[in-house]
This record gives sequence, C-alpha cells and structure tokens, in this order.
Amino acid sequence: MAQFKVGLIGLGGRGMGHLRGILTEREDVYVTYVCDSYEDRTAAAVKLVEEKNGHTPKGTTNYKELCESADVDVVVIASAWENHIPAACYAMECGKQVCTEVGGAYSLDDCWKLVNTYEKTGIHCMLLENCCYDRNELMVMKMVREGLFGKIVHCEGGYQHDLRHEIAHGEENRHYRLRNYKNRNCENYPTHELGPIAKILDINRGNRMVKLTSMASGAWGLNDYAKMNPETVNPALQDYAFRQGDVVKTMIQCAHGETICLTLDTTLPRYYSRNFTIRGTKGFFSENESMVWLDSDHGEEWGHSSFNNLEKFRPEWEHPIWKRFFEEGVKGGHGGMDWLVFDAYFTSLAEGQVPPIDTYDTAAWMAVTPLSETSIANGSMPVDFPDFTRGMWTNRTDKFTGFYQLDK
Amino acid sequence: MAQFKVGLIGLGGRGMGHLRGILTEREDVYVTYVCDSYEDRTAAAVKLVEEKNGHTPKGTTNYKELCESADVDVVVIASAWENHIPAACYAMECGKQVCTEVGGAYSLDDCWKLVNTYEKTGIHCMLLENCCYDRNELMVMKMVREGLFGKIVHCEGGYQHDLRHEIAHGEENRHYRLRNYKNRNCENYPTHELGPIAKILDINRGNRMVKLTSMASGAWGLNDYAKMNPETVNPALQDYAFRQGDVVKTMIQCAHGETICLTLDTTLPRYYSRNFTIRGTKGFFSENESMVWLDSDHGEEWGHSSFNNLEKFRPEWEHPIWKRFFEEGVKGGHGGMDWLVFDAYFTSLAEGQVPPIDTYDTAAWMAVTPLSETSIANGSMPVDFPDFTRGMWTNRTDKFTGFYQLDK
Repeated sequence: MAQFKVGLIGLGGRGMGHLRGILTEREDVYVTYVCDSYEDRTAAAVKLVEEKNGHTPKGTTNYKELCESADVDVVVIASAWENHIPAACYAMECGKQVCTEVGGAYSLDDCWKLVNTYEKTGIHCMLLENCCYDRNELMVMKMVREGLFGKIVHCEGGYQHDLRHEIAHGEENRHYRLRNYKNRNCENYPTHELGPIAKILDINRGNRMVKLTSMASGAWGLNDYAKMNPETVNPALQDYAFRQGDVVKTMIQCAHGETICLTLDTTLPRYYSRNFTIRGTKGFFSENESMVWLDSDHGEEWGHSSFNNLEKFRPEWEHPIWKRFFEEGVKGGHGGMDWLVFDAYFTSLAEGQVPPIDTYDTAAWMAVTPLSETSIANGSMPVDFPDFTRGMWTNRTDKFTGFYQLDK
Repeated sequence: MAQFKVGLIGLGGRGMGHLRGILTEREDVYVTYVCDSYEDRTAAAVKLVEEKNGHTPKGTTNYKELCESADVDVVVIASAWENHIPAACYAMECGKQVCTEVGGAYSLDDCWKLVNTYEKTGIHCMLLENCCYDRNELMVMKMVREGLFGKIVHCEGGYQHDLRHEIAHGEENRHYRLRNYKNRNCENYPTHELGPIAKILDINRGNRMVKLTSMASGAWGLNDYAKMNPETVNPALQDYAFRQGDVVKTMIQCAHGETICLTLDTTLPRYYSRNFTIRGTKGFFSENESMVWLDSDHGEEWGHSSFNNLEKFRPEWEHPIWKRFFEEGVKGGHGGMDWLVFDAYFTSLAEGQVPPIDTYDTAAWMAVTPLSETSIANGSMPVDFPDFTRGMWTNRTDKFTGFYQLDK
C-alpha cells in the first residue's frame, strides 16, 4: 500500500476531527506536518499525533513552510475559508498533491487562479465534498444513472443548519463564520448540496452551470438570538448590523435547461437538513420527506402516503460503495461520509487517477459564492458563470459514480 | 338578510362547482344569470339552478349581457384566466359588485386597468383566494399576529400539483391550461400560496412587494407524459415544444427586506402541496412537514422529531373563523375554504365594508404572472413591481384577520 506523507493545514474543530478520526487512522497516511495560525492549536495537534501514532510531526504557524517541506507529499487544507485557495495554489506550486475542505471562494479571480495553477502544474485540487459520498446521495445517483426518475429537470438542496450558537460565540471560539456574517452577504456555503447535484447533472462533463441569480432576506436572526440570550452572547451583537441575510436563495440555470435551487439558511431556528431533492419526469427523491415517489407507483394519487418510504428502496438501490462500507465497517465522522471522501481521494492518488472531484469541479462549485455576492449586491441581477473548462465541458464525458469516473 | 342577485360567468368545472355547492346553497344569494361561451355549459347551468332552487335563471354566451342586466347585483367570475380582468372591469363599469376566481394576469396594463376602474367606480374586485381561508393558513396567521414566530423573515409556498392529466387532455376538456402551457412561460398561478403570505407580510398595508426574479426549468414533463400514455393522450403532444417550464421559481423581495419564494410545479409527478412555510426569528411553520417548530421548545436540538406535531397546537391556536365553522358545520368545496371565501365576500358586501382582499391586493397578486414572464423572457432579470396603491401602502394600516380588517 502506498503511504502518503500528509501535512494538515487548519487545526480548528474540523481539522482536529480529521486528524483524530481519519488521518491518524488510515494505513496509507503518515502525518508529518501540522499547521495552524494559532500556536496552541498546532501544539495540541502535534501531541495528538504523538499519542495516536507514536511519532512526532513537525508543527508550524506558517502554512508555506509546511507546503515547502520535503516531508510532505500531500497537503490537506481545513483552515478558515479564505485560506483554502491560497494554500491550495501554494501547495500545487510546491509540487504537492492537495485537497481542501469545503467553503465558498472569495472571488472569481481566486477560482481562476486555482484552475490556472492546475493547468500549469498538472496537479489537481480536490474539494473534500463529503456529501457527495453520503448514503442517500450515492443511492440517488445510482437511481438517476439507471433512469428511475426519467429525465432530470430540477434539483434543490440547501445548507439548512441553525448555526446561531457557533456564529454568536465566534469571538470566544476564534471561528471564521462570525466575521463572514458580519461583513458579507452571499451564498457562503453552497457545496454540500451543490456537489451531489452537480455530479447528477453532469456539470463540467456535457453540461455546465450557465448563470445564477441570488436573493437574500434581511438579517434579523442573530440579533434576536443575542437578545434572547443576553447572559451568554456578547450584547454588542443584539444590534449589530449583520450583512449576511438569514435566508439566501440561489437559482442556477444549466446549459441544457435544468435548474438548481440552493438555500443558505443558518441563522434562524430550524432542524438540520440539506433538503436534497431530485425531480424527474418519472419520479423524484426528497430528503426532507425521506421519500422516493415514482409515477409508475402512484398515477394520479394525492397525499403524503409515501413519506418515509425510503428504506423500501434501500435493498435494490444501495450504492456499491455503501454496501462495501457496511461490510467493512463504517468509520469516520458525519456517519461515514468523511471517511469515504478521503478514501476516494487517496485511492485516486494511489492509482494515479484524476480525483473524482477535480479542479474544474472545485472551482465551479466554489464560484457560486462570489457570483451570488455579486448578484445580491446588484439587486439580484443574473450573473454568468465562467466556463472554467474553457469549452472542454462539451467533450469531457466521464461520469461520477463514486471513486472513479464511469468509463474506467 | 340581504339577498344578492348573482350572475356567474364561467361554467367549467370550477364555476359549476361553485354553483352547485355554494351559490345555490347560500341564503343570501339568488342566481339570476349564468354565462359561458359554450352554449351547452350555459344550458346545463340553467338546468342545475332550476333543479336546486326552483327558478329559471337567464343564460347567455355573452358576458357583457350578463353584466349589463338589471337582474344582476353581483358578478362572480370563474371563466378562463384571460377573461378575469376584462369581465371584472366591465362589471365594475356597469356598476356591479364583482369578485373573481384566481389566476394570474396577462399584462401589467390589465392590472392597472383593474385599479383604475376601481378608482373610477368605487367598486372593488375581490380575488376569491380561497387559500387565505384554509384552516392552517388562518391558524398560522393568528400565530404570526401574536408573535409566536418572532420577526417574520422569509416565506415560501408553491402551487405544486401534478396537472399533467388535465393539461394533456385540454383539447377534449376545453380547458384553458393547455393553450397557456403551449404558449407561455411564467409563474402562471401564484396566488394560492402568495395570498396568505401577502396578508401575513402586510403587503399593501405597511409593506409591499418591490421586485421579483423568476427562473424556469426546461419543459419535459408533458412530453414524457404523452409518451408514457400513447393510447390516451394526443400523440402530437409527445414532441410538442411546450413553452411552459416544468418548475418555475420566483423570488420576491419586500420593502422591509422580507423575502418570498414561490414555486410553480405542475407538470412533473408529485403529490399535492402548497408547501406553505413561514420562517421567523423564533420559530416556523411548515405545511410539508405538518409542523410548528419553536425555538423555545427545541434549543439546539437536531432532527425530525417534530414532524407532524401540528395537531398539538390546534386547540390553542385554531382561528376563530374555523372554530365557528366547525360549530356551524363545514360546507362547500376544498375542505370548506371555498365556502369561507364567499362568506367573507358576501358579508363584506352586506355590511358595506371594503372586501378583505381588495382591488390593490388582487392587482398586486395577479401581477406576479406578467412580471415573472418578463423576468424569464429576459434571462431572469429582476423586475420591479408597480406600486398599485400609488404610495398609499405606507399609510394603509388595516390588517387581515379573516373576514374583516383588524381595526374594525
């Protein structure tokens, strides 16, 4: 088995979770270097690797040192959003393989820089979009590929997650969301829902996202949260004029006429849902309703009788990746999908393949954030997507099926 | 009790339903005139009134004759969509009270014509938006008015109804939807969801809809439906290039920053839902999930444990209109809301009040259709709403509570 010397940048909650649950657990990974701009976090990570793997990795507060080190083959980025693309490009320039945690970009220039750096170095930057590997998303992918829903017409998804506690305590927790919510107004976290949808709609492989329009509601959720929790939340947040709207809706049109609706919904009370929804001419899947609805089963019937019928479809439609995962034992965070996305990445590296989420995907998905920011700032004007493939999307035919492209 | 001599224009499924279940049942209504452009429909309606009420109304195929007749006090319009505003304006010009079934407008000029005709004649045109009177919508209105959800931030709703059978058989059934779906691409039926939301957000009474942007998916649903049903559906529809996209999403921004998302979803397989959703800083209501979610109950809890908890809230929050309706006996179509919307209308007439859905509401809600048509035709450009109140929205303070304005 290949063994990769891994350097990890970003040692907040997410980075430490990966270090503890995945990077120190995988046989093909040897953690040689850890980095965070906070010294105490770096020290804690060094100690964690010592305890779990019995060797002492290097530690630094300067990610460039990590990227430059001969002790590192693969750079994993889990830092604050704004550092993802700069660190990824620097790693690629240093000749290192690189993958990055999710989050939107800050400018289209950054997305182009990622693509240009790939084209110059030949090294891909894989977005670690774990939700592409979640159980329902992969099952639905199989259903779509085998035609169960007919022609796919419209898809929806959201990052619908009440993050008021995390954001409102961002100062104490040194969390980057607070400063983003104070200063920006955009679809700031599009890829959990967009990733699986983009793969289903063959984005960058015979289809592409052509334009979007975004609209943001006013920002009232965090103020009211601060007012409702005056003893625990910084009182200055009660009247802070947050820029980030509570609900942001983004509509995307694809080259072949399919549409995608994304929802960012993180500062009002709600339950967690990505509301993964795939609508076709013969049926649909709905995460919220835990339901597969097939025209052939229902005809003209009305009603909600099919809510929660999902498990009925599981035996026939479970994706092979998850069948194997259950046989081998589910590992890692977020129900297993964190493990699987790293599995996909390291397997592609070991086999010398293009990663299943390549640099064009990473750039296109992350571009939703600056595009939505522009649309909102201009009164919901439609904004064109750049074609990061420079026309090659008409000729790229590989389809996502999990670890590899369909034709391999 | 006042008795109104009613003329009914439009004797398709909807008009005949009203005639049978409501207009021949109400003690305050005496049906004197019926009209449809098809003679057989008019004859059938005359016969129905004879059978049910023992008198013979006049019949005509020319709605202007009906409007001009001294035998008519009140004109009820249930014809094809394109005739709603012309017939309403003609009735007002003839000095008749008028209400109309729902449906979008065909142009902003038509909406202005409605407003101008009201301002000239002093007669309001009430949109018979029955969903404003449905049980959940009224209960949620009460919850909103009493502050249960905090500040209302974002609302959603849709007309999500699989109408493929109705549309595909539109030729045999002489139904207007088919010609609309062949020729137009817009949010063609916005008011079932928008009506209750507009009342909740005080549209035209301290708030207004400022702009919208719409995006339509491609049109594949009806073609595939025709292909799946070759023996019953006109084969010409298998490849007909329908203009109407299968899913149309419309985002509306309000003057105070609240947002509304509307969905038209009528030509793909699905169950019926208006997906009435009201999101606030302290909680939300969701029709799809039959759920009220309160921050005070849940804190940071995840999960779907509150799905279908709605009946728990019913005893405390049931709207007085529905409490009384249950006591007196629920009547009329669509679970009772058809009866209630007519009750609201005829009661306002009897008491000489402005109807609870007045001409400004009717015009603003119907305007979504031509505005969405313009937005879609121009690549989802944002389009401004006209202010049909000519600035008076800043000074109109009455709030909708059911039959009457709150301050009466």
